[in-house]
Amino acid sequence: MAQPAIDPLPSWNDGPAKDAILDFVRRVTMDDSSDFVPVHERVAVFDNDGTLWCEMPVPVQAYFAADRIKALLPEHPEWRITEPFKSQLAGDVKGVMAQGIKGVAEIAMATHAGMTTDEFETIVRDWLATAKHPKTGKPYTKMIYQPMLELLQHLHQQGFSTFIVSGGGVEFMRVFAEDVYGVPPENVIGSSIKTHFEMRDGTPVLQRDAALDFFDDKAGKPVAINKFIGRRPIACFGNSDGDREMLMWTTLGRPDGRASLGVLVHHTDGEREFAYDRQRVLSGQLDQGLDEAEGYGWVLADMKQDWNRVFPG
Amino acid sequence: MAQPAIDPLPSWNDGPAKDAILDFVRRVTMDDSSDFVPVHERVAVFDNDGTLWCEMPVPVQAYFAADRIKALLPEHPEWRITEPFKSQLAGDVKGVMAQGIKGVAEIAMATHAGMTTDEFETIVRDWLATAKHPKTGKPYTKMIYQPMLELLQHLHQQGFSTFIVSGGGVEFMRVFAEDVYGVPPENVIGSSIKTHFEMRDGTPVLQRDAALDFFDDKAGKPVAINKFIGRRPIACFGNSDGDREMLMWTTLGRPDGRASLGVLVHHTDGEREFAYDRQRVLSGQLDQGLDEAEGYGWVLADMKQDWNRVFPG
Repeated sequence: MAQPAIDPLPSWNDGPAKDAILDFVRRVTMDDSSDFVPVHERVAVFDNDGTLWCEMPVPVQAYFAADRIKALLPEHPEWRITEPFKSQLAGDVKGVMAQGIKGVAEIAMATHAGMTTDEFETIVRDWLATAKHPKTGKPYTKMIYQPMLELLQHLHQQGFSTFIVSGGGVEFMRVFAEDVYGVPPENVIGSSIKTHFEMRDGTPVLQRDAALDFFDDKAGKPVAINKFIGRRPIACFGNSDGDREMLMWTTLGRPDGRASLGVLVHHTDGEREFAYDRQRVLSGQLDQGLDEAEGYGWVLADMKQDWNRVFPG
Repeated sequence: MAQPAIDPLPSWNDGPAKDAILDFVRRVTMDDSSDFVPVHERVAVFDNDGTLWCEMPVPVQAYFAADRIKALLPEHPEWRITEPFKSQLAGDVKGVMAQGIKGVAEIAMATHAGMTTDEFETIVRDWLATAKHPKTGKPYTKMIYQPMLELLQHLHQQGFSTFIVSGGGVEFMRVFAEDVYGVPPENVIGSSIKTHFEMRDGTPVLQRDAALDFFDDKAGKPVAINKFIGRRPIACFGNSDGDREMLMWTTLGRPDGRASLGVLVHHTDGEREFAYDRQRVLSGQLDQGLDEAEGYGWVLADMKQDWNRVFPG
């Protein structure tokens, strides 16, 4: 396939990141290229939080959980005086974090379990329709990165299958991923809680249980890629140390000798979005990956330098 | 899409099973049909053992395990005198089964774990290239059902995505599913053992560990369908009581009101294949499903009556 005459990535400024991405896509898709990859092996994986949409000040799913705690309070008056709910209701993130991973898990399960999969989908859909980002006042589904949308579309046009591989909840993301990114439910991989099948008055349901099934982060990402896709991606896009292992799995020591591309979105633009990397944050710390990028040949996409637009519209 | 003039299912005899299948496909694919389903929601799921290929006298993967035990014996001389390996080596299935589920799991782990995912793929590929079915002397990949191949192809042509949802090992099936069935790795769902990611001399590997990750049978099948596909299938093909729950999930009480199809392959042909249903077998018992089929509207495909050919060629 020849490169179209019009720029497929108009929101990317000319520079080494854009060049590296377009050059890779050309090399693996042109028939006469020594790096040519057949269509069915053109698999690209994308982290979600901080790579496809904004994860600051805290990831979107944490806002969802916070709003659910408020909505469910009438049924759980005891939460007013019990941790971690008391801190959560007061908007005291430090107080919640002081409860450790157990506190976070308690909030996650109280808000994500105890209903059927169909009921959960409706709850998430209704929430996304009205919830607004605290800084911009925009719906969360508008806090997505225009340059990454263009990249997804360019890859689709060049015969790639694109998958989301995120630490976020799989059933949370599937509610919007197809409409917002063009990524269908079967191509969304994420963290999950256990579900079980039961017949309820002659109708089959899947009930969501308060138990972790899989945490799709760090070394779990290549494990999930292998389990769900069963092919090794040739392109991987992330933004944090949680994406290091799937970048390694994509780009290093491939027995098939395929060309590959690894990209890290670097959040350098405090004005148009948020600036963060090495400091500890709830989600999105980029420290080791920043040190390793040059040696491993990973491309840094510098939000301030490389993107002339951040959000759509 | 209009039905092609040539018969898409030539190995199926005219009769109620063939009629029900072709009628369903017509109803969900014709633009002007009240049961029309958009392409991206046309998901069909297939069991593998006994539905797409022969599972008798024992499932193919059990032969693989038996051959691996023999191949690995020089490294494990202690197996000659330890159960369940001693019985396994003697071909004494009852002796193995006498060790219970623990014995079966020991053989499974000894033969399926302890290597990387790449190494396991090579082992399975090499074995499939030479192993032969004990009754017919044919390669196992030729012991597939021609009528089901035609059905897979017809569904592909009519815009369906087809997935395998099997109790068999996912990484075992992925080795041949694309070549043999036209079902790509990312559409193969099965049982799995745990893997972990590690860097080995600068090269990333996924190592297969001796621990069950997920058993994809019975009530696990709708759970896996939801986890991996995230859409409810509109067509489901099975052959045993292990497929009941995914048939229920596909065909009963759908909140979306979609038309659906459930089919059970009934093994009635002891001459051309094997005749079995209600009796207890290692894999493939069809007892409850046989009682429920009529009430739930599931189609029974009677191998002897409905198929004029069983195997290809």
